[in-house]
Amino acid sequence: MTQTRYDVLAIGNAIVDVLASTTDDFITEENLTKGGMALIDADRAVSLYDKMGSGQEISGGAAANTLAGLAMLGAKCQFIGQVAKDQLGEVYAHDLRAVGVDFTQAPRDAEPPTGRCLILVSPDGERTMNTFLGASHFLPAEAIDQDAIANARLVFLEGYMWDPPEPRAAMRRALEIARQSDTQVAFSTCADFCVHTHRKDFRKLIDDGLIDILFANEEEAGILEDSDPASAIETLGKDVPLLVVTRGPQGAIAIKDGERFETTALPTTVVDTTGAGDLFAAGFLSGHLQGESVTRCLEMGAVAAAEVVSHFGARPEQDLKKLMAEKLG
Amino acid sequence: MTQTRYDVLAIGNAIVDVLASTTDDFITEENLTKGGMALIDADRAVSLYDKMGSGQEISGGAAANTLAGLAMLGAKCQFIGQVAKDQLGEVYAHDLRAVGVDFTQAPRDAEPPTGRCLILVSPDGERTMNTFLGASHFLPAEAIDQDAIANARLVFLEGYMWDPPEPRAAMRRALEIARQSDTQVAFSTCADFCVHTHRKDFRKLIDDGLIDILFANEEEAGILEDSDPASAIETLGKDVPLLVVTRGPQGAIAIKDGERFETTALPTTVVDTTGAGDLFAAGFLSGHLQGESVTRCLEMGAVAAAEVVSHFGARPEQDLKKLMAEKLG
Repeated sequence: MTQTRYDVLAIGNAIVDVLASTTDDFITEENLTKGGMALIDADRAVSLYDKMGSGQEISGGAAANTLAGLAMLGAKCQFIGQVAKDQLGEVYAHDLRAVGVDFTQAPRDAEPPTGRCLILVSPDGERTMNTFLGASHFLPAEAIDQDAIANARLVFLEGYMWDPPEPRAAMRRALEIARQSDTQVAFSTCADFCVHTHRKDFRKLIDDGLIDILFANEEEAGILEDSDPASAIETLGKDVPLLVVTRGPQGAIAIKDGERFETTALPTTVVDTTGAGDLFAAGFLSGHLQGESVTRCLEMGAVAAAEVVSHFGARPEQDLKKLMAEKLG
Repeated sequence: MTQTRYDVLAIGNAIVDVLASTTDDFITEENLTKGGMALIDADRAVSLYDKMGSGQEISGGAAANTLAGLAMLGAKCQFIGQVAKDQLGEVYAHDLRAVGVDFTQAPRDAEPPTGRCLILVSPDGERTMNTFLGASHFLPAEAIDQDAIANARLVFLEGYMWDPPEPRAAMRRALEIARQSDTQVAFSTCADFCVHTHRKDFRKLIDDGLIDILFANEEEAGILEDSDPASAIETLGKDVPLLVVTRGPQGAIAIKDGERFETTALPTTVVDTTGAGDLFAAGFLSGHLQGESVTRCLEMGAVAAAEVVSHFGARPEQDLKKLMAEKLG
């Protein structure tokens, strides 16, 4: 059997998002950090869910959202993540396959159930995430297929997955294989708390030259460098071959081989910011894989991000290819 | 313990909707009737789901959608329906309770799983429904609490539930109790095929004077009377104390004690028509319970319907009370 040559192979959390509108008062009452992401245990997942409004279940997970966007833009992708053998796991697998992403990791026939993220969306579109990781963190290192990684053009790693030991081992294995082959490595820092917790590890990955493309938002870049975002971007830009920093409504900055590029965000009505960074990465990487200029890659990221913030959920609803053609020609 | 006096008690299918955008070509390829509702078995549910695009899970069920709207408008409601003891069943119960609807029927700890409806939404917003009823049709007649029905102001019955023998028995029981008390009965014909299949039964319910308020759309009215919709509306208007006929973008007609009232549909961008009739009923009944004029009831129905067609899913996303105040003063 010939090994499929994937454009992008991603390792990430397999999480179904449960989205509900909320008020800022509820966020305060529940002691949540608006715009943040918190890990919650099974008990808290139940009690918070009980208090949440009527929801919508939409498949999510940072790296998987990026893959969904990439696949819609024509890239051949595989997702490596762990769901449980339950209804949400079926939904999750379906939604990835439905957009053309390969997903072959067998569901885990044991507790805990498939992971879910309780997402409270404020009237201004800001999302506050509360993640019960469930089966997601039981991804075994053996899920990594050496040949698939060695043959892939790019591996996308989700910073969230650095936390639990098993998926971290899987990611270390992927990094090792990638280094021994021509596979590029893209890494997303994902959230403040990831960088806070794993700053040393992330910094070492950079210093060891294991990361080709680093995705972060301004705050994460600042935390990583323990400095203000502007200086952090400057320093990081020297340390990785390609740095991409998203700035919410201010757009995004990329630094490639020392040269700085910038784009503005597209004007859009923000309904729910869930997945904005993930889809920015999708648009950017799609351009990157097609050999587009950095400016064009940034613009493609902005188009994909604008689509995903215009509706509930972190997976694109519109035809991204068509949208790129319409917006960018 | 004092019995809660419900404004509305509804018996209906407990179904989680799985909504995905589709093309008209897909509808044709799959031999589906655009705009229709078809019952599918477990195998077809799997094969159709495999071919469908990435979805969104949103709780549905005709009568339950109506109750969700009524509860949001301030009515005290109870839903009687059957879910299985599984993840979709949990989601379903949560979403009803989250909008204030009482739902106490214990989940069924056996196959089949919680029902689901695969809904394909065409670019023009028309929805094509494929329902796998699952646990829903195992609602036992014992689920009907005699006192609750006798004390309720209104019982809302979903025509879809006339098909399976157990829920039909539950509904017959509810009709009997309602007749012996002051409880009004509202009945929704729900879909063409329901009326085709159960025309005689539905007609007999009307002739026996068991239905106080009949909800139907134009086509269903026509099928029920075996005539053109206009004549059907005229005849039915004489046979039930209050007839409400929805006409999609043409608005709605009500006939109360022989007098005819009409409303136009509100201008809105139609994204997904799922739940339009259910929410029309919610708005109308909310007005009815508050003693509003028939014209006002129709207008309230139109406001609720316009909200629900403006987004994916059959449950309102906006604050209906606020919306009524804004649109109707």
